[in-house]
Amino acid sequence: MLNITFIFLEASIEPIPESIWNHPAVQKDSKRRKRSPAEILLDDSKHHAAMKNLENREKRGRPDIIHMCLLSIFDSPIGGLSDVYVHTIDGKIIGFSKGLRLPRNYNRFVGLMEQLLKEGKIKSGGKTLIEIKDHDLESLLRSVNPSQTSQILLLTEKGEELDGLQLDLDLNLTPNLVILIGAFPHGDFDRKVMESIQKFNPISISLGKRSYTSLYVTNRVICLLENSLRRLRDGR
Amino acid sequence: MLNITFIFLEASIEPIPESIWNHPAVQKDSKRRKRSPAEILLDDSKHHAAMKNLENREKRGRPDIIHMCLLSIFDSPIGGLSDVYVHTIDGKIIGFSKGLRLPRNYNRFVGLMEQLLKEGKIKSGGKTLIEIKDHDLESLLRSVNPSQTSQILLLTEKGEELDGLQLDLDLNLTPNLVILIGAFPHGDFDRKVMESIQKFNPISISLGKRSYTSLYVTNRVICLLENSLRRLRDGR
Repeated sequence: MLNITFIFLEASIEPIPESIWNHPAVQKDSKRRKRSPAEILLDDSKHHAAMKNLENREKRGRPDIIHMCLLSIFDSPIGGLSDVYVHTIDGKIIGFSKGLRLPRNYNRFVGLMEQLLKEGKIKSGGKTLIEIKDHDLESLLRSVNPSQTSQILLLTEKGEELDGLQLDLDLNLTPNLVILIGAFPHGDFDRKVMESIQKFNPISISLGKRSYTSLYVTNRVICLLENSLRRLRDGR
Repeated sequence: MLNITFIFLEASIEPIPESIWNHPAVQKDSKRRKRSPAEILLDDSKHHAAMKNLENREKRGRPDIIHMCLLSIFDSPIGGLSDVYVHTIDGKIIGFSKGLRLPRNYNRFVGLMEQLLKEGKIKSGGKTLIEIKDHDLESLLRSVNPSQTSQILLLTEKGEELDGLQLDLDLNLTPNLVILIGAFPHGDFDRKVMESIQKFNPISISLGKRSYTSLYVTNRVICLLENSLRRLRDGR
């Protein structure tokens, strides 16, 4: 039995930072939503003008990216059986229960993430569905790689190009597969994030010479993974 | 050279119908957005209470579905080269220019669709990017199948199950491939829509015994298509 873990990296699930709470664009949104800026998710589509001087601004305020990746994951049969974690741009680790039915409407997803940041977990019917974990990226990577034999795949433009048709999974070597995908719009992985990952000897792979969106990378990986598993199952 | 056309069927891109303009949920949204209900897209996440008695309500008010499918299409190399049309639940045909960069934010997509319904087209820099076509579904299917030799694939639960690893494309037979995917949340294709499609002898295919979301179907078809084209190109 193969255990698959998806970890999305540097997703922009973060509250509006204090340094821009007084900006008119933030104040307006705060008033409209009747919430303090500390309880609102940073969103480039609403707070663009306020974000001008934020550090790393081109990677921030895009919760739509992780929303779509998560929907693609949870809609697929493989994703439904996988462990899914999101590492946020400010270093939090969010864990999602298997086969979760996430809100498909963007505004509801944003509301849910705001509730998560405030309360630390989302429960329903006595079950914890989403939770901020007591982990940083390194301790998460250790925990999903307990026997240090997991295959860790890092999707990055700078990786070795796949032949395009399949992922080569050596399931005799390991029953654990960990897949790392960036969930930000532009630029490279953060240097510290990369240093943490490198300690675990990931195999860096790329889908081609072009720059692809996180959504496309997620979709393609799911599909190749489904094909590989089907081939293994069918002995082809 | 293969021409690929994607047509999404029964997408819920429609204005709020007149019969519910006076419902408090609609009035509230109309006031908040400072627009008349006729100029607002029907959205289950906002107008749920008002939609209770609408005909076909379970298929309506879900523009998020077609939004995600379109993003998945346009993010993929193949989608960028394809012709993309959306057939709406009220029978309109919307054409998208090749390789379009659609708004990734849901609320902006909704705003754009509202502008489209009002003005009939979206232009930028002298170029028409999105347009309501002077077509119904049948005339569209005739126009994308000019020599009546196109391969028309209809994705439906009731179709023949794919072997799962590839789409069999017989490109010697035809340089035209038309792919039809439903863009609604529940239920079957509308009877009249199905009658129109059947006139063109589609090949009905299914991805498996489960019921899948439009997003998953779109993602899987794109990936299988990419694999098939790569195989053909590489002579495998």
